Amino acid sequence: MVNYPGGIVKSDFVSADRTAPKRTRSESVNFAKRGMSFEAEINATNEYYLAHGIAVVHKKPTPVQIVHVDYPKRARAKITEAYFRQASTTDYSGVYNGHYLDFEAKETNQKQSFPLKNFHKHQIEHMKAVLAQQGFAFVLLNFATLAETYFLPASALIDFYDAHAGLKSMPLDLIRTQGARIPTQQIPRIPYIEILKTQIGGS
Amino acid sequence: MVNYPGGIVKSDFVSADRTAPKRTRSESVNFAKRGMSFEAEINATNEYYLAHGIAVVHKKPTPVQIVHVDYPKRARAKITEAYFRQASTTDYSGVYNGHYLDFEAKETNQKQSFPLKNFHKHQIEHMKAVLAQQGFAFVLLNFATLAETYFLPASALIDFYDAHAGLKSMPLDLIRTQGARIPTQQIPRIPYIEILKTQIGGS
Repeated sequence: MVNYPGGIVKSDFVSADRTAPKRTRSESVNFAKRGMSFEAEINATNEYYLAHGIAVVHKKPTPVQIVHVDYPKRARAKITEAYFRQASTTDYSGVYNGHYLDFEAKETNQKQSFPLKNFHKHQIEHMKAVLAQQGFAFVLLNFATLAETYFLPASALIDFYDAHAGLKSMPLDLIRTQGARIPTQQIPRIPYIEILKTQIGGS
Repeated sequence: MVNYPGGIVKSDFVSADRTAPKRTRSESVNFAKRGMSFEAEINATNEYYLAHGIAVVHKKPTPVQIVHVDYPKRARAKITEAYFRQASTTDYSGVYNGHYLDFEAKETNQKQSFPLKNFHKHQIEHMKAVLAQQGFAFVLLNFATLAETYFLPASALIDFYDAHAGLKSMPLDLIRTQGARIPTQQIPRIPYIEILKTQIGGS
């Protein structure tokens, strides 16, 4: 059973501190914390792109299954019982110069490979469907310990995923060969559109 | 204060019956029920398009602000306090034959005009940004009482919105002139891609 899907980040919470004491599963907590800053950097990058008219890219809201809602008089509707759902698509989508783009952003503390468990089968299927519609699908992979971020076309991830069902992670060497390192900078933090431009030019 | 944003539909709930007795605001209830079937028809249309390789379009999850989560041992994380947020973008986005498409679907019981309150300023701004990136933005308007559904390019909605800030609704006559009626059918229910094709061809 999935207790804490990967897409949950601090921005979905009003206060991380208020929820922290209730957390009993250290793995879940670490996962959320690891993803936080990378995700914040991508969100900041997207805000920069939007403000400068470069691209319109938004993170989709965290999918939540709502079970019970109270509607008090003279107050906001309050959701009192809900559960996290697994995302059926990727987290980010948008438009750049007429092109549809669609990506997932993930982080690892591994140094030599990227764990495939970060990608659900639904997401792989979604990326295939996007490619079939001539959209640009990719993943942004952050090796936190190495402080290296890569742009990997979805086609490379899908090929590896389909060919190596038994393998649990994709080697960094292969990511370096089939993807492109994104030079992180001050503003915007993760200029992935620069890499996308080369992909579009070459297609 | 917004108690019940427009994007909330039955599909976000596990059981509408369980929440229904708690509803004290008849307006909210009617709004949700009115939107339900039209939204379900669009979702079914998108499933058809996906299954047949025609387009990849998904409804974004309902944005929820999560305040409190319990993490019980050996059980799913349970959200115990959360609130509906107003969407900053449109509800639907996707890709058709390389083109980015982005739309909002709304319903009214009015017979002569479509109330503009269905569209928030954020959404109008979002549609402008999408058009600036050469995406295809539009709205699907269902006149429930008339059983007529229209495809209206976002440019027409934006022009009217900007020019007639004082008016509370857009006349149906104008929608008929500037938009296109979608012939609803059995499968897919709301074949909006057929209209989009003519827009793309003419652009």
